Amino acid sequence: MSALTLKEVIENIEPKDPDWESRACAHVESLAIPPWSLGQVLTLGVQLAGIKRTIHPCVDKKMILTMAADHGIAEEGVSAFPQEVTMQMVANIVAGGAGVNVLGKASGAEVRLVDMGVKEDMPELVKKGAVIDAKIAHGSENFHKGPAMSRDQAVAALEAGINVASKVIQEEGVELLGTGDLGIGNTTPSAAILAVMGEYPLTSITGRGTGLNNAGLMHKIKIIRESIALNNPDKNDALDVLSKVGGYDIAGIAGMILSAAYHKVPVVVDGFISTAGALIAKGLCPTCADYMIASHQSEEPGHQMMWQTLGMHPLLNLNFRLGEGTGAAVAMHLVECAARCMNDMLTFEDAGVTNGLA
Amino acid sequence: MSALTLKEVIENIEPKDPDWESRACAHVESLAIPPWSLGQVLTLGVQLAGIKRTIHPCVDKKMILTMAADHGIAEEGVSAFPQEVTMQMVANIVAGGAGVNVLGKASGAEVRLVDMGVKEDMPELVKKGAVIDAKIAHGSENFHKGPAMSRDQAVAALEAGINVASKVIQEEGVELLGTGDLGIGNTTPSAAILAVMGEYPLTSITGRGTGLNNAGLMHKIKIIRESIALNNPDKNDALDVLSKVGGYDIAGIAGMILSAAYHKVPVVVDGFISTAGALIAKGLCPTCADYMIASHQSEEPGHQMMWQTLGMHPLLNLNFRLGEGTGAAVAMHLVECAARCMNDMLTFEDAGVTNGLA
Repeated sequence: MSALTLKEVIENIEPKDPDWESRACAHVESLAIPPWSLGQVLTLGVQLAGIKRTIHPCVDKKMILTMAADHGIAEEGVSAFPQEVTMQMVANIVAGGAGVNVLGKASGAEVRLVDMGVKEDMPELVKKGAVIDAKIAHGSENFHKGPAMSRDQAVAALEAGINVASKVIQEEGVELLGTGDLGIGNTTPSAAILAVMGEYPLTSITGRGTGLNNAGLMHKIKIIRESIALNNPDKNDALDVLSKVGGYDIAGIAGMILSAAYHKVPVVVDGFISTAGALIAKGLCPTCADYMIASHQSEEPGHQMMWQTLGMHPLLNLNFRLGEGTGAAVAMHLVECAARCMNDMLTFEDAGVTNGLA
Repeated sequence: MSALTLKEVIENIEPKDPDWESRACAHVESLAIPPWSLGQVLTLGVQLAGIKRTIHPCVDKKMILTMAADHGIAEEGVSAFPQEVTMQMVANIVAGGAGVNVLGKASGAEVRLVDMGVKEDMPELVKKGAVIDAKIAHGSENFHKGPAMSRDQAVAALEAGINVASKVIQEEGVELLGTGDLGIGNTTPSAAILAVMGEYPLTSITGRGTGLNNAGLMHKIKIIRESIALNNPDKNDALDVLSKVGGYDIAGIAGMILSAAYHKVPVVVDGFISTAGALIAKGLCPTCADYMIASHQSEEPGHQMMWQTLGMHPLLNLNFRLGEGTGAAVAMHLVECAARCMNDMLTFEDAGVTNGLA
């Protein structure tokens, strides 16, 4: 399998198929229930049909790719936790005891950890297959002093995300992807991306991340404001935004979303950091949004504005604010429900039920 | 196993245990995540701990009891579907092709259908074990002309629900129950119960059920208004409300909720009809609410007011309006997630993660 380039992926993403969506709607309306009475689960079933070009979509093989990276901006004191926690959380996920492991297992999803740009190297974990090595750099640069990465590094990180996802789709037959993130400091680039691309005021979209106090939150807003002023990213050029105020985890997530769309695989988008990745992916190729499934509304105040900017409505609101792919893991169960409704429910005709509304 | 009486159940329901809830909170706060960052899943974990008297609750064995009955009020033309559909939907559930079968299977829950008061008899289905026979009458009376049932019948129906649930808990080791309903016309008694017990105006809480048009909805409101005026149920006497404007499916659901509480088993309450049952159960024994889990917010406009009346907030809002136990089935996955978080996530100490907030 030769590696895909960003250009080739973006140029070859096709929209979901409206004919298959129409057929799926007709099938839903033939089910022995009041029309559309399983609401969002059925509209999700129709989306799956449009993505997979069948009214009997299968999402048995599920995988969450958790993209890990460190952020130079962390040295500005924008997180309640020190940067060493990134590597500790890598170990926690490898041990199987993190939120995403537990919730992924509950939904039947495998979790793979991808090193996109963690500060520390982890040769042992890569060697034993516990971590996928897609590292572009040992953390992003501090974007309060200059761009987070070069434009070439941004392209390389997107392509790394594209090819990690492409590999598990092509070689392992993954039928449903979920995004996840890991990296101390990563709500800061996510808020910066939203502020630039969605044009929202920073005070309304910047949150406490893992637990900043009021002074910490004010400081974080100030750092982001100054960083945007310094870098002046172009909101109409997603690559510019990503390279100037983004991060490697976010780039990996954007890449995997583009890859999912390229391969016609649905992708469940997790929380605040993942949705920042979705904004970048949509900025690079608007059609890829057809393949996204909005998992949940997190506690980060800006997350709602991200979904609004994407024109999407999340399935769940359980007050999560953890990341890792935990919200995607839970939402994957709803995608499973949607597929099963399309496949296993009887129609009025099958069931011999009188359709009072026909 | 001797049959339980309503009196004996109500007198012996104990509250959930605050000491176990405190221990569960301490455990949650030791997990290697920002505090409470899995939101409602963790508060659900604490509830499970209080119910089951352990910080490591298990909900592996799940079962939905779908209570079926016909309603005399259907002859007033309050439903978009004819009454014969009740029996057709019984057959659909027995065949395994209904929404509750499909969504129950996705969440690992078994579905049992209980005949609480279907008009038709179904000796073959009962004989082969496909339906549990707990029939009190061949449908309720038309409560536009008089009470839906006698007070003795209401007690008998509650006790039937109690003992069906008690049997599966004691003999099969069910660890998590879900409620479900089936019966053409049953949104009408549910709205009537809410109107009486919650004192809401009928126009704001009466919905289209399986699909009434505007004229049908206006007619339904008129019928409910006249029925309440005729029967004059006492809002402070839940048994009076149930017998005058209730139904056998609702009675069975109320009984199973009381039974779950008596046996210290959590019970996931489904949609509009199930929550009417929950109102009756709480009216009979307020403490039983400790054992309820609010599954979802349905499309029926009164459902939100039911949760408000109960002082509960539902986990999901997926625009369901099907009943059968479909919302409970989906929410059971969240209960599973909650139990797994309590059991399988590593603590800061286990994981060797630096607690920046400690």
